[in-house]
Amino acid sequence: MFYDLTVVQASKMLGSLKTMLEKAALFAEAKKINPEVLLTSRLAPDQFSLIRQVQICCDTAKLGAARLAGKAESAPKHEDTETTLEELYARIASVQDYLATYKELDFADTAAREISLPWLDGKKMLGSAFAINFVVPNLYFHVTTAFSILRHNGVDIGKLDYLGSIPFLD
Amino acid sequence: MFYDLTVVQASKMLGSLKTMLEKAALFAEAKKINPEVLLTSRLAPDQFSLIRQVQICCDTAKLGAARLAGKAESAPKHEDTETTLEELYARIASVQDYLATYKELDFADTAAREISLPWLDGKKMLGSAFAINFVVPNLYFHVTTAFSILRHNGVDIGKLDYLGSIPFLD
Repeated sequence: MFYDLTVVQASKMLGSLKTMLEKAALFAEAKKINPEVLLTSRLAPDQFSLIRQVQICCDTAKLGAARLAGKAESAPKHEDTETTLEELYARIASVQDYLATYKELDFADTAAREISLPWLDGKKMLGSAFAINFVVPNLYFHVTTAFSILRHNGVDIGKLDYLGSIPFLD
Repeated sequence: MFYDLTVVQASKMLGSLKTMLEKAALFAEAKKINPEVLLTSRLAPDQFSLIRQVQICCDTAKLGAARLAGKAESAPKHEDTETTLEELYARIASVQDYLATYKELDFADTAAREISLPWLDGKKMLGSAFAINFVVPNLYFHVTTAFSILRHNGVDIGKLDYLGSIPFLD
């Protein structure tokens, strides 16, 4: 379940994020504007820009899975230097590649794993609480905020771009 | 896990939504504006307003849990007639009360339950797929969109209002 929730689904949501950015690229082209206008947009002056939203989506996904699997050290490092769409696509792909190294068995001990975060002053939570109360809400928060920034700017994206494919039964 | 993910956590997120609305009420009071200005706001002309976002959060939570537990008929009906903050608080409370009737055991058969939705033309998905690919992303999408609408309008809310309390170990 943790694998499906934080690896398979997170990777799918990163795919949705890429779809939104690709539609942003088409929008910028049609409007003859620099895509950077969109990438540096935000919905409030003290909110992170779209670039930072994408970076946080990527970090939430990679570090979420890594910490839940007890492999925090294995996560690829990213320096947060992206300024272009191509660089954001590459970062997304890098995290999707990393997530693809995980298997369901990597999360066999996740529910009871004690997880502490660098900025939490030694406080700990169980893996199940970390996944449900922290990783999942944060991932969707930043994917949706990216969506909202683009939507507010007029990019033609909708709920299906966000949800991605639904695995129906045959 | 489905209980924690779609009942306990969904109820907490509805609490976060109420917190945001309460801060919107304070903001409206300080600015001497009618709260309805915020409740009818949206980030794009063809997006649902804040009122509708709150209604959908409530429906996603109540129907998500109900369908996952195989009790769709038990969910309280709501007519989508809310126009005021007080009415939205009442709707949130009604769904939180409904969610409180569930126990972990109600989700014992959820993973393998075949779920079909009225608008899906007979297509079905497993309970686990429905929870992870549909209920959870939709809930966070609409809570975050409500957050973004208020944030864009200048209401003083932040990530901690959204995340709510994190269950740390003692």
